[in-house]
Amino acid sequence: MIIVMSREATDEHIENVKRRLEKEGFSIHLSKGVARTVIGAIGDKTRIPLLALEAMPGVEKVVPILQPYKLASREFKDEPTIIKIRNVEIGGDTIHVIAGPCAVESREQLLETAHMVKEAGATLLRGGAFKPRTSPYSFQGLGEEGLKILAEAREETGLPIVTEVMDIESLPVVYEYTDVFQIGARNMQNFNLLRKVGETDKPVLLKRGPSATIEEWLLAAEYIMSSGNYQVILCERGIRTFEQFTRNTLDLSAVCAVKMLSHLPVIVDPSHGTGKWQLVSPMSRAAVAAGADGLIIEVHPNPSEALSDGPQSLTPDNFRDLMNELIQIAPVLGRKMAVDRE
Amino acid sequence: MIIVMSREATDEHIENVKRRLEKEGFSIHLSKGVARTVIGAIGDKTRIPLLALEAMPGVEKVVPILQPYKLASREFKDEPTIIKIRNVEIGGDTIHVIAGPCAVESREQLLETAHMVKEAGATLLRGGAFKPRTSPYSFQGLGEEGLKILAEAREETGLPIVTEVMDIESLPVVYEYTDVFQIGARNMQNFNLLRKVGETDKPVLLKRGPSATIEEWLLAAEYIMSSGNYQVILCERGIRTFEQFTRNTLDLSAVCAVKMLSHLPVIVDPSHGTGKWQLVSPMSRAAVAAGADGLIIEVHPNPSEALSDGPQSLTPDNFRDLMNELIQIAPVLGRKMAVDRE
Amino acid sequence: MIIVMSREATDEHIENVKRRLEKEGFSIHLSKGVARTVIGAIGDKTRIPLLALEAMPGVEKVVPILQPYKLASREFKDEPTIIKIRNVEIGGDTIHVIAGPCAVESREQLLETAHMVKEAGATLLRGGAFKPRTSPYSFQGLGEEGLKILAEAREETGLPIVTEVMDIESLPVVYEYTDVFQIGARNMQNFNLLRKVGETDKPVLLKRGPSATIEEWLLAAEYIMSSGNYQVILCERGIRTFEQFTRNTLDLSAVCAVKMLSHLPVIVDPSHGTGKWQLVSPMSRAAVAAGADGLIIEVHPNPSEALSDGPQSLTPDNFRDLMNELIQIAPVLGRKMAVDRE
Amino acid sequence: MIIVMSREATDEHIENVKRRLEKEGFSIHLSKGVARTVIGAIGDKTRIPLLALEAMPGVEKVVPILQPYKLASREFKDEPTIIKIRNVEIGGDTIHVIAGPCAVESREQLLETAHMVKEAGATLLRGGAFKPRTSPYSFQGLGEEGLKILAEAREETGLPIVTEVMDIESLPVVYEYTDVFQIGARNMQNFNLLRKVGETDKPVLLKRGPSATIEEWLLAAEYIMSSGNYQVILCERGIRTFEQFTRNTLDLSAVCAVKMLSHLPVIVDPSHGTGKWQLVSPMSRAAVAAGADGLIIEVHPNPSEALSDGPQSLTPDNFRDLMNELIQIAPVLGRKMAVDRE
Repeated sequence: MIIVMSREATDEHIENVKRRLEKEGFSIHLSKGVARTVIGAIGDKTRIPLLALEAMPGVEKVVPILQPYKLASREFKDEPTIIKIRNVEIGGDTIHVIAGPCAVESREQLLETAHMVKEAGATLLRGGAFKPRTSPYSFQGLGEEGLKILAEAREETGLPIVTEVMDIESLPVVYEYTDVFQIGARNMQNFNLLRKVGETDKPVLLKRGPSATIEEWLLAAEYIMSSGNYQVILCERGIRTFEQFTRNTLDLSAVCAVKMLSHLPVIVDPSHGTGKWQLVSPMSRAAVAAGADGLIIEVHPNPSEALSDGPQSLTPDNFRDLMNELIQIAPVLGRKMAVDRE
Repeated sequence: MIIVMSREATDEHIENVKRRLEKEGFSIHLSKGVARTVIGAIGDKTRIPLLALEAMPGVEKVVPILQPYKLASREFKDEPTIIKIRNVEIGGDTIHVIAGPCAVESREQLLETAHMVKEAGATLLRGGAFKPRTSPYSFQGLGEEGLKILAEAREETGLPIVTEVMDIESLPVVYEYTDVFQIGARNMQNFNLLRKVGETDKPVLLKRGPSATIEEWLLAAEYIMSSGNYQVILCERGIRTFEQFTRNTLDLSAVCAVKMLSHLPVIVDPSHGTGKWQLVSPMSRAAVAAGADGLIIEVHPNPSEALSDGPQSLTPDNFRDLMNELIQIAPVLGRKMAVDRE
Repeated sequence: MIIVMSREATDEHIENVKRRLEKEGFSIHLSKGVARTVIGAIGDKTRIPLLALEAMPGVEKVVPILQPYKLASREFKDEPTIIKIRNVEIGGDTIHVIAGPCAVESREQLLETAHMVKEAGATLLRGGAFKPRTSPYSFQGLGEEGLKILAEAREETGLPIVTEVMDIESLPVVYEYTDVFQIGARNMQNFNLLRKVGETDKPVLLKRGPSATIEEWLLAAEYIMSSGNYQVILCERGIRTFEQFTRNTLDLSAVCAVKMLSHLPVIVDPSHGTGKWQLVSPMSRAAVAAGADGLIIEVHPNPSEALSDGPQSLTPDNFRDLMNELIQIAPVLGRKMAVDRE
Repeated sequence: MIIVMSREATDEHIENVKRRLEKEGFSIHLSKGVARTVIGAIGDKTRIPLLALEAMPGVEKVVPILQPYKLASREFKDEPTIIKIRNVEIGGDTIHVIAGPCAVESREQLLETAHMVKEAGATLLRGGAFKPRTSPYSFQGLGEEGLKILAEAREETGLPIVTEVMDIESLPVVYEYTDVFQIGARNMQNFNLLRKVGETDKPVLLKRGPSATIEEWLLAAEYIMSSGNYQVILCERGIRTFEQFTRNTLDLSAVCAVKMLSHLPVIVDPSHGTGKWQLVSPMSRAAVAAGADGLIIEVHPNPSEALSDGPQSLTPDNFRDLMNELIQIAPVLGRKMAVDRE
């Protein structure tokens, strides 16, 4: 860490900063320039937030040298993490697609979709039972009934399931049914929830918050990991920008950034990331070409009847066409799609 | 609501949209232009999210005419809502300042600050017992111990207290001590938590999420109100933009916007909104000049020793100077500061 | 266009709006709902900005039904526009890559790079002679000397050249040498410059401004086209967001959006779009997979010696590897890379 | 400047960085930590952009210690700069308001407005003769005819005039008539134009670009100043964010930031900054309360007939009421409004 003192800083200010750093076990190096004094400090980076140096008199700014997360970083672990979900492995050479409706609406709708997406090549099934909705007047999900339907679909198709856990209260019931906990974008900084899923033994799909930097996203992963659960799959789903044509701006460069900074697998959600079904297939191809470890895609047998997010859902036909394209792109990166069609 | 059909829309597409709208009780008006057919629909706006019209074939876009919230709107209630907190009223002619440290760190620190801010003119006391922190390695608050200290400070000073509730689990214990529930910016769309505080009888201070539009913010208030609790105080605390000099970009025009759209009171948090103590006083003056109903300001007896957010905390002296300025600005708007100094 | 009147609008307000619309040749349809009166107006959309309806008493909002641009729209021309630059065609089935250094630094540097990028598969040469730089103390380009070097490189390699024109003053000299005018991101709304290149007979590469919506970008194209020059190539180069890991956030969904809204070809600049050479190859693959008609990539024989934008430049070796990957991805979309290596 | 080497950096990488720095006259200090080597470099900050260090092998990041601008900085000149425009001084204790229509539309409109705003307390007159418009189909201004009308209004009222110069070509004609050159937000990084106004002897009102950081804005001022003209007035006019209720998000904290970083005066444009006349008065009060040195406000005798930006224009009555409020707020900051009414 580098502490830049302001040009008005007195010797006493500098001395106070030094003393605090040394008290916390940092070793210090002082460098007096013409315009500024700069203090270099080496020590345990996880103690930096406790120092509150920026509030000390005479301090102009504090420049971290290392990333503020540890367990999630490439420096902690260089080889990619591979996460096992039943018979599926995410983060290795094989790229997986999680597909299904935004919300579980009925037994028929889900089972029909599950069979269709499996047949087209999906290897995991998604579907929301508890739905966070911007308006209190929107459809809020079937709750535990939805979870049961998901479990039945897994039984029938063999596809592991991914579903959102919205709060600590419903965590036990979601745990009972799901294979992967999804943490929604709006909950990315719901720190108590992160800790609680961090105390379980099931993988966590952690969506990036709509205004979260890559660093904050990795710090959210760090919350889960520092509670003991290292099975975190990151999911880019678009960030909020001034552009209004798309629902969000899908930040595919974040996929590459995560690969540089972290060993965790990262997948992409082009459905929420664009909000328009016409953009889902091109952005799915782009995500795989950029190096994503997987995709999570909304598919609905009849999007115009969907109770939630119909405009961004693919039909089963569109989805099958997309899978055929992905099968051709993956090998360019030395990978393959996890498709096991008869 | 206006539905714009695409130029490729067929008569059947138009017919299908009409039928769905009529089925949900909307009355319809059709207008065929040269380039587009436009459908006007009049009915219960809270049913619009259930229609999923944008996913129907032939629909280009859906343009809402009315705001999607109801109870929070000026159309529902034109006169300003005034919220009572013990002897304090927020939303009327008198402007209140909530002050105190970011986090309760110790009995001494809080009691000292409480007396100081009261003496300078604050009429409510703030302080976090449960702290949401970006890094798992930062100070996380004293928990219930902190709540007890807050209650003791109220006892001593008579100031009502405002403190954050982070999740449903800790809601009962926070309820026991606090006068006002604070919902933090990161929890603005934690919908289950919104519902739960909506089922209580205590006022809620609802911070705007860092990437929330004004409309989404008012929809979050709608969640609380539709659960039965109409005592919502909105709090602007800065939005996330590309500018990095400030921690957030404090959007004071949102104060005026809320006044146009809603009857709810709105206050401003210049401490989180700027992240730099040097900007807190000017932006506090600006907030009052823009028409805010109050302020929530971080004050710490010794900011450079603060365990949380020291760089954005005022000293008691700075705070007192600020109060003196605000006392002069409020009357320009026909209001007065709630200061009862001896 | 739909005009939504406010709930306080009087009959006189409504009458005034009607009258102004009719005076400008619009035909009117009035619809009185319970909460609002809505006026539908059909007429020449390019006259809408002249009406200033939003300032009329009683008007709440004006909702355009059609896009505000005309010549650039899919409605004006449905089949894709193909732009010829000497022996090269952009916008058809063949995908072209424009490569070269950020700035022309010397004859040796440019000629060496030109040969290398040609050999690796680039079909156009880029290089800045006039450089817009954020700091007045940065290298500002060689000026006309740089243009001469570019022309010499074209002579030697046969590659058409693309170079930036920064202002009207230097337009004649740039015209003399270049094959394509590049309009930089900061000049996207330099409307007089747009008009002037619109009066020439050379193709224009129009970069998206860092805070321009897709609609504003297409309106900038409209400026060029309405001056008579229909040869506009759009170029996505990243937008400004809160994320700071990348220099900009490359918005690949804008490529798909442009394809939906316009007939103009669109290419991608992953070098400025990311600012980090490590992200250039993955985002180039992603751009082609998303449907881009081409790429513009910075290549420097020795990036660490570059006078401008070295951190985002590929080495010739990296560039060649990338071309090999693109050759495999293009066919998935039924296209091919314009590579003619021996 | 601090150069942080990556953890893979070799001794040779470090040596190369040292050598390049020393060659450019920097003195070096090396500090080897456990995880990283950090190089401190002291020298002429304006040479830093020429070093291109971030592209050198082994360099992870470069952290500037000093601001990249010099002439515009507080370190170069500590006391506030006061700029004289005929009988008016901007930047001192007296706060000035520049008022007038967005565009000069006719002799009658401008003269009427000029008299009205003068009578209400404005001390400078604004009005656009050359208008940059997003759509080529919008009103583009009266050109030189408009300048003549402005000069006539100055003759009649004594108010100095502020008008936009859009390009180098029209600079001589604008110079002939105006007292202050306005550089529009879209031209903030039109570097050649900045240089050219920097070579004149007239003050420059430099609007902040909609996506410009405060640092980039001050670097744009540096362009003007490094060409010899130190008379730069900065103008905050809103930045582009995700919020769509307002046309832009007016960043009042930027006023305070500029005061911390620079000696230049800074004023605020609440008309473009909000886009809604209802927000202009509250945000004007807020701007003065935050410490702005002045305001630039659109006033139109009949906003609903305005050919440009009517929705954000005050009527003369609104404007007079606002002036009365500002007269009361300025003294709280130890300042006064420049109003000389009879």
